[in-house]
Amino acid sequence: MQIAVVLYDRFTALDAVGPYEILQRLPDARVVFVAEQAGPVRTDAGALALVADQALAEVTVPDVVVVPGGPGQSALMDHAPLLDWLRAADATSTWTTSVCTGSLLLGAAGLLQGRRATSHWLALDQLPALGAEPTGERVVVDGKYVTGAGVSAGIDMALTLAGRIAGDDVARSVQLGTEYDPRPPYDAGSPDKAPAHLVDALRARSRFLLT
Amino acid sequence: MQIAVVLYDRFTALDAVGPYEILQRLPDARVVFVAEQAGPVRTDAGALALVADQALAEVTVPDVVVVPGGPGQSALMDHAPLLDWLRAADATSTWTTSVCTGSLLLGAAGLLQGRRATSHWLALDQLPALGAEPTGERVVVDGKYVTGAGVSAGIDMALTLAGRIAGDDVARSVQLGTEYDPRPPYDAGSPDKAPAHLVDALRARSRFLLT
Repeated sequence: MQIAVVLYDRFTALDAVGPYEILQRLPDARVVFVAEQAGPVRTDAGALALVADQALAEVTVPDVVVVPGGPGQSALMDHAPLLDWLRAADATSTWTTSVCTGSLLLGAAGLLQGRRATSHWLALDQLPALGAEPTGERVVVDGKYVTGAGVSAGIDMALTLAGRIAGDDVARSVQLGTEYDPRPPYDAGSPDKAPAHLVDALRARSRFLLT
Repeated sequence: MQIAVVLYDRFTALDAVGPYEILQRLPDARVVFVAEQAGPVRTDAGALALVADQALAEVTVPDVVVVPGGPGQSALMDHAPLLDWLRAADATSTWTTSVCTGSLLLGAAGLLQGRRATSHWLALDQLPALGAEPTGERVVVDGKYVTGAGVSAGIDMALTLAGRIAGDDVARSVQLGTEYDPRPPYDAGSPDKAPAHLVDALRARSRFLLT
């Protein structure tokens, strides 16, 4: 089972690494990080680069596709080398997935037409123009398309997917191995729960955050 | 505020990237990934490399030190270049932190003498020999030493630290920005909660997993 995690300039690190950490623990999983060109790819803040070991052109029939989000997403919404690859990979994939604004790239490739999907809460309103029906859920499974909400939701997305791929016991074992028993010290992880002034402030900055 | 995340061969990716994703969002944070030599550093499964932009010798007085865990940790318990660096960095750090078996490296450097600390649940029993008192907590703050439990606990560790560094509102804003409102599809993230046969199986494999 080949799992391709797609990197691009200014992706968000945890969007990619959360699913990677879960999915690479599945039996027979072979994860490969891919980008338009092989080599280091810088994350949004610039302080970290992940290495894409292969170019998109070298990975043509992955079983699972994972598309992270990040500020760099907005520059790729009509970028043929990526969108053509997503369409071609999706034609033979078993699962096509995203985290955060990665769903906007799936949508731009035309893969979410008529599908329920999610994204970062600040980007949900961009889904309808791409043919998708936004939901407020953290993880959405619609057919073979699995989308996760913002950044950290990639872990929940991947654990959900792990269960579908390998069964509940394997997924639980991965949860135990990664000690994923979250206890956030605050309860402000969604716009429903966070203080309104923080939601408003982040919304005001979202043009910066998401583009 | 310089935050140094220490990489080494066969570290666990999420141990490093979870805290990075939270801490890089703090005001005035400058994160640098460091390793004995600058350049790509392979994670435990081999499928991913993160780039260390600077060598340990180039980063001498970080304000915050973050040490991830991973299978590679066990090979470094008497590795002077790393342990000497940890001791020197700790001498001037504001916060010295770890995720998962990273606490064993802090312990090996002599930094946890008489401190309460945590680690991956499979490694807690190694802490007393290093002078630390293990706890079953997910995040332990003892003075300037902040340790997190296994793998995914680095996110909770970093969010706790974010509150101490920048205040509750900034930490909540980071939680909201990363949409950290976890909803695991299973409840098997700790040995107390997971089915006993999975705990036993992972314990049996732990020699492999942690070494």
